[in-house]
Amino acid sequence: MKQSASEGTPSSMSELNRSRIINFLFHHGISSRAQIAKATGLTAAAITKITARLIEYGVISETGDLEGALNRRSIGLRLNNARYQVIAVKFARSLVQIGIFDLSGSCKEIHDFPPIHNNDVVDAVMNLKQYINETIARNGSIVAVGMAVPGPYLSDEGRIASVTTMQMWEKVNFLREFHDAFAVPTFIEHDARSGALAQSLFGSQIDGNSLAYYLIGEGVGMGVIDGGALICGSRGTATEIGHISIDVDGKPCECGNFGCLECYCSTRAVKEMLLKPENRGIVEHVETLLPREACKRLFVKSSAGSAKAQRVVREISRYIAYGCVNIINGYNPRQIIIGDILSQAGQTMLDEVKRIVAERVLPELMDSTSIVLSDLPTDATLTGAAAVATNQFLRNPSRFVEGMDTPKR
Amino acid sequence: MKQSASEGTPSSMSELNRSRIINFLFHHGISSRAQIAKATGLTAAAITKITARLIEYGVISETGDLEGALNRRSIGLRLNNARYQVIAVKFARSLVQIGIFDLSGSCKEIHDFPPIHNNDVVDAVMNLKQYINETIARNGSIVAVGMAVPGPYLSDEGRIASVTTMQMWEKVNFLREFHDAFAVPTFIEHDARSGALAQSLFGSQIDGNSLAYYLIGEGVGMGVIDGGALICGSRGTATEIGHISIDVDGKPCECGNFGCLECYCSTRAVKEMLLKPENRGIVEHVETLLPREACKRLFVKSSAGSAKAQRVVREISRYIAYGCVNIINGYNPRQIIIGDILSQAGQTMLDEVKRIVAERVLPELMDSTSIVLSDLPTDATLTGAAAVATNQFLRNPSRFVEGMDTPKR
Repeated sequence: MKQSASEGTPSSMSELNRSRIINFLFHHGISSRAQIAKATGLTAAAITKITARLIEYGVISETGDLEGALNRRSIGLRLNNARYQVIAVKFARSLVQIGIFDLSGSCKEIHDFPPIHNNDVVDAVMNLKQYINETIARNGSIVAVGMAVPGPYLSDEGRIASVTTMQMWEKVNFLREFHDAFAVPTFIEHDARSGALAQSLFGSQIDGNSLAYYLIGEGVGMGVIDGGALICGSRGTATEIGHISIDVDGKPCECGNFGCLECYCSTRAVKEMLLKPENRGIVEHVETLLPREACKRLFVKSSAGSAKAQRVVREISRYIAYGCVNIINGYNPRQIIIGDILSQAGQTMLDEVKRIVAERVLPELMDSTSIVLSDLPTDATLTGAAAVATNQFLRNPSRFVEGMDTPKR
Repeated sequence: MKQSASEGTPSSMSELNRSRIINFLFHHGISSRAQIAKATGLTAAAITKITARLIEYGVISETGDLEGALNRRSIGLRLNNARYQVIAVKFARSLVQIGIFDLSGSCKEIHDFPPIHNNDVVDAVMNLKQYINETIARNGSIVAVGMAVPGPYLSDEGRIASVTTMQMWEKVNFLREFHDAFAVPTFIEHDARSGALAQSLFGSQIDGNSLAYYLIGEGVGMGVIDGGALICGSRGTATEIGHISIDVDGKPCECGNFGCLECYCSTRAVKEMLLKPENRGIVEHVETLLPREACKRLFVKSSAGSAKAQRVVREISRYIAYGCVNIINGYNPRQIIIGDILSQAGQTMLDEVKRIVAERVLPELMDSTSIVLSDLPTDATLTGAAAVATNQFLRNPSRFVEGMDTPKR
């Protein structure tokens, strides 16, 4: 039942080498055996042997001739990204969404479940299982299911910790419900960490070994990749930047702490800011809008040049920047990628964030940290769920390709 | 010149297996081959072969008979900890200290260099090199040098970032000066991270896979081990808990940030607290004392039962606790180990820290995080420098034992 920490660790040296070759092709596209040898340090003989097996099982294919590095013509190899598909499931506060992706992160279809309420979560889980089982039965390309769940998610137990706004999902043990429920393996990860994986696998111009995906939406969360691996913590609840306090005597947070960053720059905090007397009228009828809607209208006005709207955006940006300062001093990533709803505040926000970070961080660290907006879809969580499954395929391909890893005896 | 990120990564599968066996013996003491097999998952044949080689080269030895797990008598194996020694070098603001340790963390000798001032740092580096070279020449057991340097240490460049109190050391490029300076390999790590390694290797009752070593002294620093590996960041400056702000509008810090934790619970902050009118008289002549001395006298009074001293200790403890709350939400370690000068505040401090943490952290996380005082010497940094070298021996033993890793062809 328990999702082991070693899940995804290659089971043998030959599996590790297969994984390295597949990873190289995943990140670099069509490449020659010589290029793979140079990058991985494997011998030509080893590469010939391993690629032969990967071709035999259809994981990779030969393409036409390439110009080799020494101008000798050589044959290209490519990962058959499109041959394998994964089911991605995103759980949010009242929403469940399912997508089908291939291994390149390309989305084939999306299905929204009807909004779930407190009293029908058990039925919802049952319907979801049935839907996934049917999908797997009709689609032989599916090799895994990836799930992204809101946090704080206790990955050792498989449940979400007690937080008022998550009461509905607290009843569900995700590991017990889903880990062995399907004909293909299922992998479950916290939503922000899933987003970080999505950035490292599918983002453009990303250094996948060192990044922080800083998600600012209904909640504030983060996933950090350090030295090529996700920072998880002992129970799977590390890197909760939204609950790092920026003022220990500040606003009370539902987690028990005071002054949590989440209290100052989530969508709800933005709506509260717009309701203040001095900001009245910037977004019309703000009191009737959902927080995310209020944010979107504010950002539209700001982008259109409204000085008042830009002033509010800059005020919010201060808090986003305080989070960035803590991320730099706390995790020292090469890149901070700002995602989710507040990333739509765009350049006005990004400029102000960089200005404040430059004031508060050592120059050496400022110069070596890039802060960018996510170029994945605003809601990267569904893509994140796909990344969770794709990542496992890349790390341990034999688990998903029947017969490829023949036992040694 | 550059210390590569892959340094310490075993170079082959056989080296990896050697490392696993040595690590098991390091952490579990005398063990039978059967116990090693059970724990590592290696076959009996592999263990026979690998241990034969380790015995041949004197890295491990057979001991007398053991009671086997099934009551069969079997031969014990032990790591020859005492056969190998490392030189440990601790750099502090004006102090350089050298120790010689064996692989069990036992200190054989300590040598203090005279205090270094701004204008003689170049000479000091030269003297240090000479001293180390002489030590290696006279002591054939020495296999490596480990160095612990104050932060923020940019491990990719090998220098300390610009901070006012570190100006002296900013002139020194540690990698360039020391990496290839001696007849044995040299490894350099940030002091708090070195301390975390020392805890994981030499601390009692420590889960070496998941811990935060929280160092509160002249500065406030931290080293975190997550999933068995140190969190380093892209430049080696991650987990700077002392520069995570607890109040973004708080006291200005020399790093450029405001409200850094270090401004509220370092030895200097304690002295400032004791200088306040309401605390006058708790420690006599406090204005003339070095901050560390003021702390020690305060803690002695507190332990002796002075209510006034205990009130100040509790006030400081609040800040230490705010750090713990950020550590739990930010890194979710199994254990927080409080070390350095302020750990001498003892049980009064620890009780107050736990009380405040319990108020501010989700119960699930509070219950699964233990907060303890370090049981290594108060200054764990020198031991940390030894741990940096010892850790490399455990990960890549052949590098330190001539001839053990015969090339394959």
